[in-house]
Amino acid sequence: MLRWLTAGESHGPELVAILEGLPAGIPVSLDDIRADLARRKLGYGRGARMKFEQDELSISGGVRHGLSLGSPIALRIGNTEWPKWSEVMSPEPVDPDSLGRGRGAPLTRPRPGHADLVGMQKYGFDEARPVLERASARETAARVALGAVARSFLAELGVRLVAHTLAIGPVRVPEGRPLPLPDDVDQLDADPLRCFDPETSAAMVAEVDAAHKDGDTLGGVVEVLAYGVPPGLGSYVHWDRRLDAQLAAALMGIQAIKGVEVGDGFLTTTRRGSVAHDELHQGEGRILRGSDRAGGTEGGMSTGTVLRVRAGMKPIATVPHALPTVDVATGEPAVAHHQRSDVVAVPAAGVVAEAMVALTLANAMLEKFGGDSVAETRRNLDAYLAAIPATLR
Amino acid sequence: MLRWLTAGESHGPELVAILEGLPAGIPVSLDDIRADLARRKLGYGRGARMKFEQDELSISGGVRHGLSLGSPIALRIGNTEWPKWSEVMSPEPVDPDSLGRGRGAPLTRPRPGHADLVGMQKYGFDEARPVLERASARETAARVALGAVARSFLAELGVRLVAHTLAIGPVRVPEGRPLPLPDDVDQLDADPLRCFDPETSAAMVAEVDAAHKDGDTLGGVVEVLAYGVPPGLGSYVHWDRRLDAQLAAALMGIQAIKGVEVGDGFLTTTRRGSVAHDELHQGEGRILRGSDRAGGTEGGMSTGTVLRVRAGMKPIATVPHALPTVDVATGEPAVAHHQRSDVVAVPAAGVVAEAMVALTLANAMLEKFGGDSVAETRRNLDAYLAAIPATLR
Amino acid sequence: MLRWLTAGESHGPELVAILEGLPAGIPVSLDDIRADLARRKLGYGRGARMKFEQDELSISGGVRHGLSLGSPIALRIGNTEWPKWSEVMSPEPVDPDSLGRGRGAPLTRPRPGHADLVGMQKYGFDEARPVLERASARETAARVALGAVARSFLAELGVRLVAHTLAIGPVRVPEGRPLPLPDDVDQLDADPLRCFDPETSAAMVAEVDAAHKDGDTLGGVVEVLAYGVPPGLGSYVHWDRRLDAQLAAALMGIQAIKGVEVGDGFLTTTRRGSVAHDELHQGEGRILRGSDRAGGTEGGMSTGTVLRVRAGMKPIATVPHALPTVDVATGEPAVAHHQRSDVVAVPAAGVVAEAMVALTLANAMLEKFGGDSVAETRRNLDAYLAAIPATLR
Amino acid sequence: MLRWLTAGESHGPELVAILEGLPAGIPVSLDDIRADLARRKLGYGRGARMKFEQDELSISGGVRHGLSLGSPIALRIGNTEWPKWSEVMSPEPVDPDSLGRGRGAPLTRPRPGHADLVGMQKYGFDEARPVLERASARETAARVALGAVARSFLAELGVRLVAHTLAIGPVRVPEGRPLPLPDDVDQLDADPLRCFDPETSAAMVAEVDAAHKDGDTLGGVVEVLAYGVPPGLGSYVHWDRRLDAQLAAALMGIQAIKGVEVGDGFLTTTRRGSVAHDELHQGEGRILRGSDRAGGTEGGMSTGTVLRVRAGMKPIATVPHALPTVDVATGEPAVAHHQRSDVVAVPAAGVVAEAMVALTLANAMLEKFGGDSVAETRRNLDAYLAAIPATLR
Repeated sequence: MLRWLTAGESHGPELVAILEGLPAGIPVSLDDIRADLARRKLGYGRGARMKFEQDELSISGGVRHGLSLGSPIALRIGNTEWPKWSEVMSPEPVDPDSLGRGRGAPLTRPRPGHADLVGMQKYGFDEARPVLERASARETAARVALGAVARSFLAELGVRLVAHTLAIGPVRVPEGRPLPLPDDVDQLDADPLRCFDPETSAAMVAEVDAAHKDGDTLGGVVEVLAYGVPPGLGSYVHWDRRLDAQLAAALMGIQAIKGVEVGDGFLTTTRRGSVAHDELHQGEGRILRGSDRAGGTEGGMSTGTVLRVRAGMKPIATVPHALPTVDVATGEPAVAHHQRSDVVAVPAAGVVAEAMVALTLANAMLEKFGGDSVAETRRNLDAYLAAIPATLR
Repeated sequence: MLRWLTAGESHGPELVAILEGLPAGIPVSLDDIRADLARRKLGYGRGARMKFEQDELSISGGVRHGLSLGSPIALRIGNTEWPKWSEVMSPEPVDPDSLGRGRGAPLTRPRPGHADLVGMQKYGFDEARPVLERASARETAARVALGAVARSFLAELGVRLVAHTLAIGPVRVPEGRPLPLPDDVDQLDADPLRCFDPETSAAMVAEVDAAHKDGDTLGGVVEVLAYGVPPGLGSYVHWDRRLDAQLAAALMGIQAIKGVEVGDGFLTTTRRGSVAHDELHQGEGRILRGSDRAGGTEGGMSTGTVLRVRAGMKPIATVPHALPTVDVATGEPAVAHHQRSDVVAVPAAGVVAEAMVALTLANAMLEKFGGDSVAETRRNLDAYLAAIPATLR
Repeated sequence: MLRWLTAGESHGPELVAILEGLPAGIPVSLDDIRADLARRKLGYGRGARMKFEQDELSISGGVRHGLSLGSPIALRIGNTEWPKWSEVMSPEPVDPDSLGRGRGAPLTRPRPGHADLVGMQKYGFDEARPVLERASARETAARVALGAVARSFLAELGVRLVAHTLAIGPVRVPEGRPLPLPDDVDQLDADPLRCFDPETSAAMVAEVDAAHKDGDTLGGVVEVLAYGVPPGLGSYVHWDRRLDAQLAAALMGIQAIKGVEVGDGFLTTTRRGSVAHDELHQGEGRILRGSDRAGGTEGGMSTGTVLRVRAGMKPIATVPHALPTVDVATGEPAVAHHQRSDVVAVPAAGVVAEAMVALTLANAMLEKFGGDSVAETRRNLDAYLAAIPATLR
Repeated sequence: MLRWLTAGESHGPELVAILEGLPAGIPVSLDDIRADLARRKLGYGRGARMKFEQDELSISGGVRHGLSLGSPIALRIGNTEWPKWSEVMSPEPVDPDSLGRGRGAPLTRPRPGHADLVGMQKYGFDEARPVLERASARETAARVALGAVARSFLAELGVRLVAHTLAIGPVRVPEGRPLPLPDDVDQLDADPLRCFDPETSAAMVAEVDAAHKDGDTLGGVVEVLAYGVPPGLGSYVHWDRRLDAQLAAALMGIQAIKGVEVGDGFLTTTRRGSVAHDELHQGEGRILRGSDRAGGTEGGMSTGTVLRVRAGMKPIATVPHALPTVDVATGEPAVAHHQRSDVVAVPAAGVVAEAMVALTLANAMLEKFGGDSVAETRRNLDAYLAAIPATLR
């Protein structure tokens, strides 16, 4: 059982994350984690913060000489902007007179589409600062860092992940285009929107430009692929053991995600049964599926073919031409306060989604194969695959 | 914290379910639960089993004189067909010679789209009977029974649920049609496909007839609405506390669901930010939202407006004109074995989805409001609502 | 991860238990479970209920032809006295006029040492019936039934459990007496108090007789031994992964247990460090420990030597010469109502403790070794043991 | 539901801890946490490390302007000795030639009574450094820091905790001595062994001196008291909801604890029922208990009287006159390597036990009363107490 917690506010001193339950012997590299953190900032249409936001990464525990110890892994991501915020976000009491202006002014005009208003109601705050600091997508940096560790574990078990952008606003990769493979990640990272189809990518860039010009924002759809997943992760025996249910929670648990699909998802709901499933054939000495409409799961379990899940992201809710709201200090109409200026963050959401899938699969691996060292988990996995009878492979 | 487990095989003696963590004082009525079990069998295009399958319901514990006790609630749903299956599914060893024919014959032709093949690989079975018995949607009867109890708890807290059918195969309720209200449930139950739009319902019937004629099956989309949910269930502070993430898992954890949406879901991903969110206005002495695109959640929390989530169901995988597969006893090509003959089960999936949403909301209520008696939970809820400052309501 | 829930009231129609997460292929025998249920009734000094209380056992799911299916296992234990209680404990509303006398009379004189008073306060009841029905030790029958299944799983992995009585009231087996071995269980079951030391057993019988004569009750101490546990269950990496912490919760979670020890427990706290630990020696081609003061755990992990834990049970709180209390209907002094008449239930507590240890170890096995079939778990365990380097064994 | 994880190795750069699930508005003070960390180092008989080990405390998230935000709280405790260990414990690879001597030399002589040997077997290490770094009691500093936050939450709810030393080795506070009250904590902290009975404390000092002179170590027993706990935390409805079971796990989950008691614990097992329980009497307008043998729990629930639990600690396993062991590099007999030199750490264990009890009670409070702000939790608690009928108080 893998457990993890993240902490830290958007403008606080740092993000902290602890990942508990991984076996010993996993290669953990600061450079690899930094590379993933950098990938999270990619994407055409990002605002200024992505440029000046530096991620000062360090490992507090759980790793020695480049290998995991089996003990909890703790990572920290320092906020280089902290000096500007040290009073506004001070953990210790500050002189109230010194606040109230500039960064410290109360945020009383909740932004539609954000946690601001409900967060105030729920936690009893009279302004939105304490809400938006934690609800911010800045927190996903901590998930990406943990996801990099989970991906390293999965790599030791033969699993490699790829995330790519399927749609930006209404611009979408046509059905039937080839899927990116693990070795295509560099190419994806080089694309302005992490889209694997060059033609569609060009149209996406145009869409971003148009939205930017109009002072508007965009959402989109990302897809995460996992290659090398063995059959039998997750289970049909109880609903919450289903791998698809766990993946759905992991993806919907990302800020701004409003829809999740496994395989062809909602498209499949419009098909007839005779053309909606993946037929089984004997071939190459093993049972093959003639298609991958299901996205690599049957009965809530991985099938051994490529796993494919999607997440749909709403457009960024902080719209440059700010949305109407109510000032909760006065009860008067107002326009929402404004915190940042990305046009679109879908490519970054793909990197976050990849991290969430990695953490979910790492947990499913441990559930099925156990193991306190990578060697043990790998040995158990190999023995399982070898024990499947020839006619069932 | 609410916990629940279900047990039982499709052709075993009975289903059993235990729900642990509900407060005392909830009205629990056998008739109400039976009514929900009956609703689960509704729907045009269901096969013979729905007719002869009788649900013999009883309460084993946790309820006294019509009220919950605070102790775990256990329900049993007897299988009236059990005598026909008592040898095939006997918990105790049977004479092997008496099996091997008829119902007891090994199922070695795994059905595409089902758990059959992967289940055998994972659990080490040489035929699919032990897999399909548990993977079967029969298990959802247990969830519906528990969901009826959760709904009764929610009703005491002012929350009422409605599920309805949005699409059957390619036939879909047009955008903008009115949503059913809690008092419309009888009307929905009377509709052949539990669709609230009469015109669309007629087209759905035609679609089912066409698929039936072609020996084919259909899927579709259901939507669950929750009225009366207070603001602030779930949270943005950690991903797995998000109500939307929990709902996504609950819905994707239903057999055959391949996609989940909150509010307008994937449609929202195609919109621009300026027209994708729900603006805030002062009105009627409280803050109102000008739309409900978000489906009643912001920042992973309920907003206090109607909660709206959707689940997309793939077409039934047991296709009358059976799909190609491999006989795992011989390694030879074969056609999949055939277990039942519904054309479509989407209306039933709506009832199951309603149960899963009910269980998820009941848990979220307890997480926020605590309480060991309904009176205590209700008192805490009322006090919370009363304490929200006037300008924040 | 193993999960389990029990349900059912003491005088309700039945107890129900579901155990989720065990692999497929475990032998599950009704006769074996019945034998454990019978062992739970053993012991000199038990009252009449143990004689007429029959356990009508059945399996509702999760087992086919004598083997577990990997799906949740559900067991039912019918209450043969139910017809006498069917109105008092009816799940459905009854005519209030028919209650209020005899068995149905409100229990307003809470018994000291029981859940009665606090249960009423917590759940908002005005009498103790709804409390004591669930708080009763009758519920432990469900745990014993599940424990029998867990023990069968452990047996497949080479682990065998023995529980025995260490003390009845002030009468205690002297330090240094030999520990019972797995093959001694029949002898233990034949002893009036499940004590392995005949001399002490005789003194215990005399103590029970004396307490009975005085209208009083007794407690005592039980010890559970587990033979064949591999090294490395549990972990030091996080407090709640410690096997000793899990065992402590499992034992303290039994009704009437007030103390828990691992190995020599509190005795060890009085020793000096030089004579408190188990020295390591090379011998017989492996590392041996010169003693077992630690009870088979170091750093929260099993060491591979015999696991040894103890639970201390308070005397039965329903004292024949009833204790002073307050009638909560009137606020007047009263004597506590009286529900049963065992003098001592320590031998039964040993059987329950054995079940709780079995469930805890089964979970720890799955956490370390994974596996969806007994063959897979066993294979992983064997490979782990084989991979420990020669100098570390 | 409260969740928390700690991370960090004994000689790593720092300890990190995250506590998730506390409501907003709790006063969190660095000075208060530091004071608790200082209390953890108290006690006669501690070695040199306690003197030079400085705790550099900082808050990474979850607290703003002295109040909790409702978001996860992250604390860091820097290790001032880190520069000496930065190569030996480097998270990044180091030149192997630079290790192998001094601090970096492999630890191949596992210490009896420690996690060393089993840890190597379990995680596949060939030396004990990676084991002892995490198994070390240094980790308890992180728990104490979190416990200070939990205590502040409890204080807002009217609950105050006191830990004191009951026994050092064979020297024990006689039965019947008065219990320390919350206001006695300063006096306890001033006592060399945090013992409330001056006469016993003097004998304890002599015992420590004698053990020190003999090159030996000592264990002992601590007791934690909680004043102001309301009735009804925990529950009898399921074993793992029992507060006593949760407390037992929390205490046994501390390094070196081998026994746990609630109230009079094992002493109670030797009493007869007529003198073992706490009789109920009417007095002062409420129901009073004539004694507190049960330690403030009945039926697994807090009764509203003082909660009283105990933990028994084995003597420190690193004995100055080192214990026999085996060198696992050679298979030859050896003496155990030696890491530190406290004679006794029981007073510190009391502070750790207090932290674990605080975390457990904080969770139980949230389970029963919910709440996302301290004001909400407090309001729900007050309303619950006010709603208990007069005759039941």
